[in-house]
Amino acid sequence: MRHEELKKEAAGEAGAEAVIEGRNAVIEALRAGKAIDKILIQDGAQDGPIQTIKREAKKRDAMIRFVAKERLDQLSQTGKHQGVIAYAAAYEYAEVEDILAAARAKNEPPFVFLLDNIEDPHNLGAIIRTANLAGAHGVIIPKNRAVGLTPTVARTSAGALNYTPVARVTNLAKTMEELKKEGLWFVCADMDGTTMYELDLTGAIGLVIGSEGDGVGRLVKEKCDFVASIPMKGDIDSLNASVAAGVLAYEIVRQRS
Amino acid sequence: MRHEELKKEAAGEAGAEAVIEGRNAVIEALRAGKAIDKILIQDGAQDGPIQTIKREAKKRDAMIRFVAKERLDQLSQTGKHQGVIAYAAAYEYAEVEDILAAARAKNEPPFVFLLDNIEDPHNLGAIIRTANLAGAHGVIIPKNRAVGLTPTVARTSAGALNYTPVARVTNLAKTMEELKKEGLWFVCADMDGTTMYELDLTGAIGLVIGSEGDGVGRLVKEKCDFVASIPMKGDIDSLNASVAAGVLAYEIVRQRS
Repeated sequence: MRHEELKKEAAGEAGAEAVIEGRNAVIEALRAGKAIDKILIQDGAQDGPIQTIKREAKKRDAMIRFVAKERLDQLSQTGKHQGVIAYAAAYEYAEVEDILAAARAKNEPPFVFLLDNIEDPHNLGAIIRTANLAGAHGVIIPKNRAVGLTPTVARTSAGALNYTPVARVTNLAKTMEELKKEGLWFVCADMDGTTMYELDLTGAIGLVIGSEGDGVGRLVKEKCDFVASIPMKGDIDSLNASVAAGVLAYEIVRQRS
Repeated sequence: MRHEELKKEAAGEAGAEAVIEGRNAVIEALRAGKAIDKILIQDGAQDGPIQTIKREAKKRDAMIRFVAKERLDQLSQTGKHQGVIAYAAAYEYAEVEDILAAARAKNEPPFVFLLDNIEDPHNLGAIIRTANLAGAHGVIIPKNRAVGLTPTVARTSAGALNYTPVARVTNLAKTMEELKKEGLWFVCADMDGTTMYELDLTGAIGLVIGSEGDGVGRLVKEKCDFVASIPMKGDIDSLNASVAAGVLAYEIVRQRS
């Protein structure tokens, strides 16, 4: 599924510039400062150009994954990946400061979504769409593991990516520490929390949503001031991540209004 | 996208029995009473076996679409579609009465989701998942145009399809009329409605969710007792359909609790 997704994106749902294949092309893209979400490098490759790519990627905080040659062959559109395929962001990322500035400009207490490793681009797109309509000032995602602003995300956001800033940070827990200094407090979604209706969700708030499989990570959860749960009356474990984000976001909207 | 989805499903995410190719195979499946979501027939085909398929399909309320031979060629896995490909439901459908019986068994006023032509299987799966966790007694979908219980729906429902009955009806508006006699009243989601927080959403209730593109159809909307809107504070038009269903369903949960 994950792989299908990559392949579909590689097929260029929103323009071929999203996929960059070959050593020189990837080095150029990195040096040009293009926002790169992820670089796949063939296992064992360590010649000069690959070392350059690794160095430049580190400078620019682009994520690197090592994969088998067969995987690159499958993902390649050109058949000439030379051991490296990079995925560029379909949209440019904002800074966390841009999100706080958006709140100040509207004279509202900040309302921010923090996504702890959402991996499905449909979920990320739907969540950015929800953030926009719930009146959040921005979305913060981590660099590692999580999906970035791919063409599928842009499409499923239904245009929200044009309005709602998305910042990508290296360490979500550290960013939360910094935002606490700005007066934000954090509520994270988890099954063992207090029923959301019983929490005071007003004021400057960060809503933390965990990944589809693992929920909110331990380090991030430790930074949360409250843990909110959605009442579960059924037989299965959990809501879809984007639905859970929507339900919690609108409980915040209700309490704020 | 729609096509990609069909193709992916044809590729058998959850078993090859979901796709039935060839005239005799489709006739046999229909006569065996297998739940068929949709039959694609080649434009212009009208020989004996095709007439039989059309007749049997009508008897069993299976939806028929006429498509170009090229489309069938693309969708075919065997290369031997003989002008007809049928898609069987991955799960069996329930009856509307089963849903009412589930409410009676729990001694609760019925809480039912009605989906007016949801077309995306990921959305349908996520909504069935939400229906389960919000404590709804079942989901009603229409036969025409809407997506049925395909393998993708089963997968994205995260197991909820094993617990939450899904009934498929020919005419959603007519079913609403019948359910009104059982004491249900209906709230449909639309932008021009009353803010959901201001409506009384308790009691025996049917929550009507419109399709991704067109919202709730006119005939169905006329049967609704109230129109509820989700507050929209952003720049874009609408939430993802499964997120909107989740937000409204949990406003019902909140008011009921």
